[in-house]
Amino acid sequence: MRQNPDPPHRVLIVGGGFGGLYAAKALRRAPVEITLVDRANHHLFQPLLYQVSTGMLTEGEVAPPLRGVLRRQANARVLLAEVTGFDLDARAVAARAPDGQALALGYDTLIVAAGATTDYVGHEDWAPLAPSLKSLDDARAVRSRVLRAFEMAELATGAAEREAWLRFAVVGGGPTGIELAGQVAALARRTLRPDYRAIDTATASVALVEAGPQVLAEFPEPLRDRAARDLGRLGVDVRTGAAATGLDAEGLELETGERVEARTVIWAAGVKASPLAARLAEAAGTRVDRRGRLEVEPDLTLAGRPEVLAIGDMAALDGVPGVAPAAMQQGRHAARTVRRRLAGRPEPRPFRYLDKGRLAVIGRHRAVGSAFGIRFSGLLALLVWAVVHVRYLIGWGNRLVTVTRWLWTMLARDRAERVIGSGPAHALPTAAEARP
Amino acid sequence: MRQNPDPPHRVLIVGGGFGGLYAAKALRRAPVEITLVDRANHHLFQPLLYQVSTGMLTEGEVAPPLRGVLRRQANARVLLAEVTGFDLDARAVAARAPDGQALALGYDTLIVAAGATTDYVGHEDWAPLAPSLKSLDDARAVRSRVLRAFEMAELATGAAEREAWLRFAVVGGGPTGIELAGQVAALARRTLRPDYRAIDTATASVALVEAGPQVLAEFPEPLRDRAARDLGRLGVDVRTGAAATGLDAEGLELETGERVEARTVIWAAGVKASPLAARLAEAAGTRVDRRGRLEVEPDLTLAGRPEVLAIGDMAALDGVPGVAPAAMQQGRHAARTVRRRLAGRPEPRPFRYLDKGRLAVIGRHRAVGSAFGIRFSGLLALLVWAVVHVRYLIGWGNRLVTVTRWLWTMLARDRAERVIGSGPAHALPTAAEARP
Repeated sequence: MRQNPDPPHRVLIVGGGFGGLYAAKALRRAPVEITLVDRANHHLFQPLLYQVSTGMLTEGEVAPPLRGVLRRQANARVLLAEVTGFDLDARAVAARAPDGQALALGYDTLIVAAGATTDYVGHEDWAPLAPSLKSLDDARAVRSRVLRAFEMAELATGAAEREAWLRFAVVGGGPTGIELAGQVAALARRTLRPDYRAIDTATASVALVEAGPQVLAEFPEPLRDRAARDLGRLGVDVRTGAAATGLDAEGLELETGERVEARTVIWAAGVKASPLAARLAEAAGTRVDRRGRLEVEPDLTLAGRPEVLAIGDMAALDGVPGVAPAAMQQGRHAARTVRRRLAGRPEPRPFRYLDKGRLAVIGRHRAVGSAFGIRFSGLLALLVWAVVHVRYLIGWGNRLVTVTRWLWTMLARDRAERVIGSGPAHALPTAAEARP
Repeated sequence: MRQNPDPPHRVLIVGGGFGGLYAAKALRRAPVEITLVDRANHHLFQPLLYQVSTGMLTEGEVAPPLRGVLRRQANARVLLAEVTGFDLDARAVAARAPDGQALALGYDTLIVAAGATTDYVGHEDWAPLAPSLKSLDDARAVRSRVLRAFEMAELATGAAEREAWLRFAVVGGGPTGIELAGQVAALARRTLRPDYRAIDTATASVALVEAGPQVLAEFPEPLRDRAARDLGRLGVDVRTGAAATGLDAEGLELETGERVEARTVIWAAGVKASPLAARLAEAAGTRVDRRGRLEVEPDLTLAGRPEVLAIGDMAALDGVPGVAPAAMQQGRHAARTVRRRLAGRPEPRPFRYLDKGRLAVIGRHRAVGSAFGIRFSGLLALLVWAVVHVRYLIGWGNRLVTVTRWLWTMLARDRAERVIGSGPAHALPTAAEARP
């Protein structure tokens, strides 16, 4: 007589970003039952989100459905629900279905990878004035704001109004800020120019405001200079050492006392961990750092809770930056920990981050990058960037379409996705509200 | 000495749909100054909108920016504003810019082509329960509802709940209703099937509810039978002669006393003219019919106002159906009237509609159609449908991408755009709200 086998080990993964998805995929051959829960039905390829906000890529191209990604992985199921709390003693996670119903999800191992949200550094009231770029809705809102500003300039009756609508500012000189500023400049100087009659879109100004002494702080020194120079060549006015201290409908106040006039401001100045990090810390009796990230052990587990791992942007670990490759590596490390334990080797292994380098695109045909000590810039860096990003895109269909769109954008003076949304998130404040 | 030439004739076109856009394009060589005003920044290729709502095409592919379409037409400018009223004696149209500012637009000839909106036939309160398919926002809302229903079924704890979420209904047996019902069936029976673990999506039921005695009322008799049969083969439950008299969160009440259980209902049962038709009628002292359409002269002008033309879905003319080809032909006719008058031939010419036929797609690889007395069905009709629709798509880029996506959808078991939106328009009523 054969005994009933043990019930399979249940791995619950919270979040379908790079961390959670790579953890799930790395467990595809493990004798586990994986449940991946996310409040969105899609993964989000954050590094290309700025291209959705500037009309180059579609939502589907950067946001494949999680179910589709895990279609062939029989040991994984996907649930669409928002996690609301943790009961670590009962080994259960509380969640809410889209219709509000409460769900309780049990686990043997819990991997929390809920990512990060925008940090307005104490100025949450700036959010309506300066949309950020963390979700698809954000990307649509930014696209609507930018394109509508040009429409308003075309409608303007006086030169002052026209110029006001043609002034843009991006706050934050990291890769997202750089890439956004470069794309807005490229839209104005190239794509949109033949479409307007009353305005010359090339006269638009784009300011990039960075609190630190240089843009791309985490890049090697010569690349920071190169990036600033390339941005200048695109017409982007780079203001470094200038933290934003005030924001209104007409522009930014800087720490230096200067003012940057801009009716369209986009926020790309930092992130903080998902609020779930604080809830998990409370449940586990651990702490979060000033950016809301969980303190984790070197092996990514929570202190005293070896069956709970926190990974990606919501885990604080010295020397590990908040970038996609770090989340992927942590996802794989968490999966390895699960597999080792199931194989009877429970001794912890610390996570080691392998820094493969940095890349950032500047405008249409330049980039800067470094990898394993080698620095590159210009068109070569753009090619490296393209290869790396296509490599990590999910699905051959999306890879093909994305490359086609990039070539199309380079060759034709056009972008496929230029719809201005009409929902409340896309609405412009009325003249009376914005400029009382 | 050369005299100053006359100031150019100003043509103001309200609406960038098929009627307005074709009028503008047909005036490209005329000595006129065209202003095209629309509250959206894009044209909308309505006949393919259902493919956006089922994840096959992207927004940009069916909604090219009006500016881009008229880029090379130097005598046309585009304004993003919502028309609010008409002062026909002053030859001026009142509009509102996106920031609420009032604009006054003068004209020598006015072409009004503001199209149609959904008609809930006196049940406007049904709109939140049964989204329709007239705008891009509608298409996103329908997509979110349909995809989320499958997610809810996967989450359901009991068989009754699971089955309730897998029941869909489409109201309206015209081409849009047929095409939607066929696509939802194809999603359930093919695309989504490998993605779910707890449910077999192929067990989903799709009902098509039509008030008239047959589906596709405006198609020749044998094609109606063929369409009903093909729909049945796809698993669509066709209920004809059954007007909907009640709608709640769990389904439809029919005139016949029957009930159709369906937690997801889509409304495709008719349109009425834009409210601008009534405002224009009031300004001109003419009337609208019961579907809100303007009474127009045989030459598409308003009685006593030869300089004002109304075209497309908002003009009532015997024997002219509310389809895209009719709007295109009327747009071209309006342009011809303007050109003839400028050439000194002001005598009116009546508009004559050339009926080129009808086409409707059923599921993934069947269609029915008729053209110039010839009827066709099956795969051949699908090919004709594809050629005709690609022919009228705007832009070579969009044509190429659309054909690629169709082939991809036929060959691969996948659809590219499956994002469930998260804005208020996409929200599900909570369990308490929907089923008190």
